[in-house]
Amino acid sequence: MTEAPGQFSPAFRDELANLMRWRRDVRRFRTTPIAPDLVARCLTAFASAPSVGLSEPWRLVQVETPAARQACLANYQDSNAKGLASQSGEKAQLYSQLKLSGMAEAPLHLAVFCDDSTPKGSGLGAASMPETRAYSVVGAVTLFWLALRAEGLGLGWVSILDPDRLARDLAVPHHWRFIGYLCIGWPEEEDMVPELERCGWETRAETLHLDLR
Amino acid sequence: MTEAPGQFSPAFRDELANLMRWRRDVRRFRTTPIAPDLVARCLTAFASAPSVGLSEPWRLVQVETPAARQACLANYQDSNAKGLASQSGEKAQLYSQLKLSGMAEAPLHLAVFCDDSTPKGSGLGAASMPETRAYSVVGAVTLFWLALRAEGLGLGWVSILDPDRLARDLAVPHHWRFIGYLCIGWPEEEDMVPELERCGWETRAETLHLDLR
Repeated sequence: MTEAPGQFSPAFRDELANLMRWRRDVRRFRTTPIAPDLVARCLTAFASAPSVGLSEPWRLVQVETPAARQACLANYQDSNAKGLASQSGEKAQLYSQLKLSGMAEAPLHLAVFCDDSTPKGSGLGAASMPETRAYSVVGAVTLFWLALRAEGLGLGWVSILDPDRLARDLAVPHHWRFIGYLCIGWPEEEDMVPELERCGWETRAETLHLDLR
Repeated sequence: MTEAPGQFSPAFRDELANLMRWRRDVRRFRTTPIAPDLVARCLTAFASAPSVGLSEPWRLVQVETPAARQACLANYQDSNAKGLASQSGEKAQLYSQLKLSGMAEAPLHLAVFCDDSTPKGSGLGAASMPETRAYSVVGAVTLFWLALRAEGLGLGWVSILDPDRLARDLAVPHHWRFIGYLCIGWPEEEDMVPELERCGWETRAETLHLDLR
C-alpha cells in the first residue's frame, strides 16, 4: 500500500471511504475501559488538524470525577426533557424512545471547547468570521472521530446540553466556548446505517444539494 | 488490507495518520482542470458525514461564472485589506507577503452554506445549541477535504470574506448561513509543514491542551 510520500493508493482510498461509511454517532457503549495509550494515539489527530491562522484553539477537558460527570449528566437530562417537550404527536412518542447519549456507560468523556481569545495565529483569517475558530475545533474533532473508528472505538457527540451551564459546572475559563461533549468507548454494535435512520426518525438524502452560479 | 466489514488494519491506520499529516490548506494551485468524475467521487464523502439529528444541512454552490467569481474575489480582496490593516509592525509586513487564497488559480470553487431552517431532523439535538447545524457542515467539509487529499487534490478554505456580502452576491436563500469558500485544484507542491509555519507566521503547538475535572 505504501506509495511515494504524500501519495495514496486506490486500495487506501477504498478503505478510507469504508471508514467514513462505518463511522457512526454511537450512544450504546460497553463499559470496558480503553487502554490509555490507545486514546493517546487517537488524540494525535488533533496535531494534524487544520485551524484558521494556525490558531489551534481546541481545549479538551476530560470529565472524570463522579461529581463532574453527574453535573454533565443532569444538564443533559434537563436539556433532553426540554427537547422532548418541543416535539409533538408521533414524533414526541418516538423521541421519548430514542437513546440520545451514552453518558451513563461510556468510559471516556471529553468536553471540547474553543478558546476564542487565543493570541495564537494573531487573528489571521478570523477577523470577518470569528466563528471559524469554532469551526477549526469541529474539524479537529472530525479527524479524531475517524482515528477512533479506525481502532474500532465509537464516539457519540452530545449537543443536547445547556452550554453555559456546562462551562460553569466544569469551571473553564470564561472565554472558552463549549463545542461538544464526546462520549467514547467500545460500541455495543457496528452498523452502516445511522441509528436515527434505523429507528425511523429521519432518512439520509439521496442527492447532494449543489447549485451553480 | 481488507478485514472483516467495519474492521481496519494497522497498515490502514498508519496510512490514515499519514493522510492527515499530508493534508494542507492549499493556496498555490496549478490551473489544470479536475476531471468531473473525480470531483463527484470526492463529493460522496458528504453522504457519510455526521449531522445533528440527521439534518444534513449542507448546501453547496459551485461558483462558475466570471461575474460570480469576480464578486467573491473582490470580497476577499476588500476583507484582506482590512485584515492587513488590523496587523502592525513586523506582523503587518509578513501579512502583506502571505498568499492567503488561491481564488485566482484554483479550477473549482465551492461556496458552502448551512441551511439553518431545514425541517430535516426535526430539530433533534439543535434546540439548546443551534450552532451544531453549522458544525455538521464543517464536519462534512473535513471528510471531503481528506477524500480530495487522498486523490492528490488540494483544498484551501478561504474565510477572509464578508459572509453577508457573499450570500447576497451569490443570491442564496436568506436562511442559509455562509460557512466557508473552498478553492480546489491540483497543488503546486506537497509539504508536511503548513505554509503559515514555513513562512514564520505561527508554529504548531507541541502538546495538546487537555485538562482534567
